[in-house]
Parts: sequence; C-alpha cells; structure tokens
Amino acid sequence: MGDHGLHFVAMACSLRRGSYTRAIADTLDELAPDDVAVEVLSSLGDLPLYNQDVEDIGVPAAVAALAVEVTLADAVVIVTPEYNHSVPGALKNAIDWLSRLSERPLEQKPVAIQSASPGLLGGARAQEHLRQILSAVDAVILNRPQVIVTQVAAKVDAQSGMLRDRETRQQVIRQLQALAHLARSSRSRLIQNHDVDAWSHCG
Amino acid sequence: MGDHGLHFVAMACSLRRGSYTRAIADTLDELAPDDVAVEVLSSLGDLPLYNQDVEDIGVPAAVAALAVEVTLADAVVIVTPEYNHSVPGALKNAIDWLSRLSERPLEQKPVAIQSASPGLLGGARAQEHLRQILSAVDAVILNRPQVIVTQVAAKVDAQSGMLRDRETRQQVIRQLQALAHLARSSRSRLIQNHDVDAWSHCG
Amino acid sequence: MGDHGLHFVAMACSLRRGSYTRAIADTLDELAPDDVAVEVLSSLGDLPLYNQDVEDIGVPAAVAALAVEVTLADAVVIVTPEYNHSVPGALKNAIDWLSRLSERPLEQKPVAIQSASPGLLGGARAQEHLRQILSAVDAVILNRPQVIVTQVAAKVDAQSGMLRDRETRQQVIRQLQALAHLARSSRSRLIQNHDVDAWSHCG
Amino acid sequence: MGDHGLHFVAMACSLRRGSYTRAIADTLDELAPDDVAVEVLSSLGDLPLYNQDVEDIGVPAAVAALAVEVTLADAVVIVTPEYNHSVPGALKNAIDWLSRLSERPLEQKPVAIQSASPGLLGGARAQEHLRQILSAVDAVILNRPQVIVTQVAAKVDAQSGMLRDRETRQQVIRQLQALAHLARSSRSRLIQNHDVDAWSHCG
Repeated sequence: MGDHGLHFVAMACSLRRGSYTRAIADTLDELAPDDVAVEVLSSLGDLPLYNQDVEDIGVPAAVAALAVEVTLADAVVIVTPEYNHSVPGALKNAIDWLSRLSERPLEQKPVAIQSASPGLLGGARAQEHLRQILSAVDAVILNRPQVIVTQVAAKVDAQSGMLRDRETRQQVIRQLQALAHLARSSRSRLIQNHDVDAWSHCG
Repeated sequence: MGDHGLHFVAMACSLRRGSYTRAIADTLDELAPDDVAVEVLSSLGDLPLYNQDVEDIGVPAAVAALAVEVTLADAVVIVTPEYNHSVPGALKNAIDWLSRLSERPLEQKPVAIQSASPGLLGGARAQEHLRQILSAVDAVILNRPQVIVTQVAAKVDAQSGMLRDRETRQQVIRQLQALAHLARSSRSRLIQNHDVDAWSHCG
Repeated sequence: MGDHGLHFVAMACSLRRGSYTRAIADTLDELAPDDVAVEVLSSLGDLPLYNQDVEDIGVPAAVAALAVEVTLADAVVIVTPEYNHSVPGALKNAIDWLSRLSERPLEQKPVAIQSASPGLLGGARAQEHLRQILSAVDAVILNRPQVIVTQVAAKVDAQSGMLRDRETRQQVIRQLQALAHLARSSRSRLIQNHDVDAWSHCG
Repeated sequence: MGDHGLHFVAMACSLRRGSYTRAIADTLDELAPDDVAVEVLSSLGDLPLYNQDVEDIGVPAAVAALAVEVTLADAVVIVTPEYNHSVPGALKNAIDWLSRLSERPLEQKPVAIQSASPGLLGGARAQEHLRQILSAVDAVILNRPQVIVTQVAAKVDAQSGMLRDRETRQQVIRQLQALAHLARSSRSRLIQNHDVDAWSHCG
C-alpha cells in the first residue's frame, strides 16, 4: 500500500466466535478498493464496562489500544447485530469509553455502518440508534449506500466464515468505495483546516 | 408490608460508587407509597458483556440473580444517566441478557424510567432510546409522569448520598404512585388472563 | 354487536386513493374478532397543517370530527407507510392536532401499530418513531404482536383492494385479538380508577 | 456579497405568525459571518400534505418553489419546535415532498439544526428524530455546535421579534461559522467529484 493508501478498521459487534458480523468484517479487506486495507479490531468483549471510578484510576489497556487503532485509522466500519431494536451493549460500551478520552478518537472520523440479522429486517433499527450515538460523538457518518444484511445465515459461508452472497458483496463494495471517498475528502478538509489555523496564528 | 404490598426493584445505571443515579435509586424506598418497598439491585457492573458463547455454556450467576430479582418484582424503576444521547452500555447489556432468558423477566413487567444528568437536558434523549428498547422486550412502560432530573449535582446531597431537591422528590413520589397503580392493574390483568387460560384448557 | 362489543377506529396514513395502507385498513373489520367492529377513519388529508393561529380561532371541523371518533373508540389501529425512516407528515400532523385538544383523545387510549412498504423493511423504522410519539401523548401502546408488512405490493389484491396474504392476515388477526384484550383490560382499569376517585371524594 | 459569499436558507417550522422559531430564523442573517447571507423561506404552511395522487398530477407550485430555494442554497438551517417528542408534521411534510423530487434538493446538502421550546428541554428530542430523517435523504448534517434553545420565551424580544439572549446568540454565531465551513468544504468536494467524473468520461 503506497502513500495514498487508506487504512480502515472494522468492529465486529457480536462477541461470539464465528458470529455473522465477524464473518462480514473478515470479508471487508477483500472487498475494499485496491488501495484500502481493512483491519478487524480485537473483540469488544475485551473492554470492561465503563465505570468512572475505573477511568479515574487509569484508562484500561484494552480501551487505550482500541483508541489508538481508531485514532490512526482513516475510517471505521461498524458491523453490528441488532439486539432489542438497538445496538448491543458491548458496542455502546466501546463508544462510551472512546467518548471519554481526551483525544476523542471518533470525532470527525468517517464511519460506515453495516448491520446483519438472521431475520427479515437485517438490523435496520439498530442502525437508527447507532447513527444518533455517532452523531453525539461528532463522527462523520456515511449515509449511503446502506448495508442492511437480512437473513444473514444464508449469506455467510459456514465453512470459510466469509460473506459469500453476491448482491450483498456488491453493496459492501459500493459502500467501501463511498467511505474511501469520504475519508479522502475529510482528510483534505482537515489539512485545509490546519492551514487556516496556522495562518490565523500568524495574524 | 402486608399481603397487598408491592415490591419494586431499582437499577442504578451508572456504575461508579457515589453516582447520582445511585443516590436517586437509594431515595426511592423513602419516597414510595407506604405499601411499596423499593430494593436497589446489585451493580449492573457485575454482569459480563453478553456473548452467546458464554450463554451456551450457562447463564452467568450474576445474570441469573438479576433475572430472579426482576421476575419476582411487581415493577422495575430504571434510573439512568445519558451517555452519547443514549443509555449506558451497561444498561443495554443488562437488558440484552434478560431478553435471552426463557422466563423473559421484563415481558409484561411494569417499568418506570428516571434519568439524570449534570447538564440542562437531564438525560431526556436516553429515555427515548430506552423506551424503544423496553418496547422490544414487551415491558409495560409507564409514560407519565416523566422524571427527568436536570443539573442533578445540585439536587443530590453529597453528604448523605440522597436526593434532596424538593420538586424532584415530589415528581418521584407522583411517578411511584402511578407505577404502583400500573403494577396493581397489571397484576389483576394477569390474574384475569390466567383464569381465561385455565378455563380454555378445561374446554 | 352486543353490549360487550368493542369499537376500533383505523387510520390509513398514506393519502393516495388505492394506497396499500388503505387496503390493509379496509381489511381489518373482516379480520377482527366477532365482537369487534373496525371503522376506517376519514382521510388524514382533510386536516389542515397544525398552526396555533388557526387553533386560536377555533378547532377546524375535520380535527374536531377526528377527535370525537378517537375519543369514542375503544382502541385505535394506525396503519402507516414509512417516509424517510419516519412517519408521514400527515400522520404526525394528525397526532399533533389531537394532542392540543383539552379532551386529549389519545391519552390512555390503546393503540396498535401496523406498517407496510413495498421494500424489504416494511416500515419498521417508522414504527420506532411512532412509538415515541405515541408515548408522548400517553397512549397505551400494544408492543406485540408486531405487524410489519414487507413487500406489500404482492400482498394486497389490486382488484379488490384488500389484504390477501395469508400469513400477514394471520398476524393481523393475532394483533387485533391482543388489542381487544388490551382494550378490555384498560376499560376495566378506567372503571376501577373511577371508583377509587369517587370513593376518595366521599372521604 | 462577493463571489465567495455563501447563501443559506432557513426554515421556521412552527407556522404561527410571531412564533419563536420564526424569531430565531429572522435573526440568523444578522448573526451569520459577513460573507454569508441567510434568507428565511416562505411558510411551510403553504405546502399541501404529501399525496402521491397530487404528485402524479404535478408537483404543487409551493413545493417546486421550496425545492428551487433549497437546491440553490449552499446550506440549510432548520429551526424547529418540538411537538410530542418529534418534529412538527409540517416540517416532516416538507421533507417528504422534497425527497420525492428527481433533483433531490437535500441530497448532500449541508444542514444545521436548531430547536427551541418554552420548556426545559429546548426541543432536544425533536433534533434526534430530525437527524434520522435527514440522514434518510442523505443530507450532510452538522453535528456541532448544537443549538438547543430552552425556555425560549425569555430569550426572544417580543417587541422586535428577534433573538436577544446573549449566550444563545453566541452559540448561533458559532454554529453558523461551522456551517459555513462545512458548506465550503462540501462545495470543494463536489467540484473535485465533478473533475473526477469528467476525467473518467474522457478515459
């Protein structure tokens, strides 16, 4: 990957080994544009539940590691199941932790959302909550194309643990292209901002 | 407490010791009607993050204990802070666990919501998400009176760790009365349902 | 319909003639329990957009007529499409008007939600917004069974303008039974409340 | 206003004359950066309720006029009250109409949200719904700074019909600056996109 390559990180938000969201996350690198690498982050299950008393003692190592990964990434892909019409507690917990750190890893970070469920609705309602939560941490949320994977059990290959459904793969390819575009324009925007700031400091 | 007394349980949803939601939860028993006892549940921080692999091995002891408490209660009071426009991961995690158990502890369970924040909005947005989540588990949600505690730091007594703001206490009293009424009518409804079922089984 | 019969009203929330939500609403009376009659309300398109200046002059006739229908009904069934991940403006406008009237027609009124769309998600996201809105007016919202009609074009008979899909009809039947049960228990609860009040006034 | 000036449009979403949201909208031009002009759009009350039968005959003149205004604007400011925990029907109706037009006026359009209420919560819950709705039409939503005007009656000058509260005015100034920045970077992004397209067409 050359100078202009992009580095994305992906969160698989159901914690079981062999989960569908993990399978989708594992397929992203293959489906991303040539100059985009996608790395799947460590399990969100490694994080403790957020507790200010714990935070006051010191940010837990797993949280700090996640924060570094997100901070260094050009964009984040969140692959989530839907639990009770919303996101899993584990995903909310991870975002809560990240929102507490002074470097604010998700602020102005381009984020794409993918959801999957064995049922007919594909986690669409979890996406709505997640969008509101990400807005609160000032992420730059990709609106479209949406990736909502309905009846996911038939779309993942149990053997290989990879997403195989042709139509879903096409949709993921389109979303990752759009995310790469958003990440590039956000990066140039941040550089422009920086110039403006530098200039004003000299004024 | 006599035969007609009610037993409520309260969840304090920020995990730090000395939290505002804990202070409010600790005050509920004092503010409840004479024939209602309110017990504050063990910390939601004792629960592991939901993971189906863990569930498949066996429901963790802390989850089972929570489920029993909720199942036996006549109603639940959830006292929550707002994190990033939604509920804390710890609260969502607890509900996710409860929703997986075959006895479905929250199904048809009367639930009242209280939120608090040091800021101006008092956690009102967290209440909206929580309502949707509780609807998904088929809880019977008390709509009114709402308890939204703004600028909570000034309303809790640091010394005693109790809610002291007069107006807020009045509002909590009204909500607990309404919840007691809802719990009583739900109980009689369940008894009626049971009769209907029994009758049909004899048909 | 005898003394113990129930009277439901249904709102079809897309305004075009021959809409899918109208077709579903028109089928409800046929699918309701024997002792429940379902009347489809006049078009929500007859209502002006809510404007306090208009309200101050006098409640428009179409609003007053809707309010009377809702007030007299034992329960309401809202059949809605999804526009831009939420409810149509016309439905929100109707609820806004009803919420302004001193008799508060939706307060403590049992309400069931049905949504339909030509797409894969069946309006599930509109249901989430609608639940929050109905909670704000203190309606008694039926959580389950949910009626989410995906790919509705294939499930309505264009000739007769009626819902014909067998599985969807079964789901509607189950929901109307649950709504009848909720309406009956709410009615008895209201009567009990009334007694309590009467008693306390004599105290 | 020179070549580099920006043109914003503002929607006042409560329809009564002399509304608070109208007062805030009327103050925006004064509070905007020097090279930004803010024009308040005609009343959303001029639009009919969305009805596909009407659309099939022809887009109503008031809808077409609104669409042109939004399309030509560099950004949109939506100033809304909260009705029943959500946006007014009139605002939702306007967005529904705009979403139907082939030119998609709100797509990739920078949008800032302001809410106001006489109560303590300032319309914060309406903002949450509005964000989801705007995401559905692929608007570019400004996350921060938020403008949530609590207890608005005391912050508007009844005589002049303008926003006078000093702190709120500062917050609005900051938001309009951020919106101008977002509009400029979106514009350059669109130009870059166009270049890429032109190039690929020559390939």
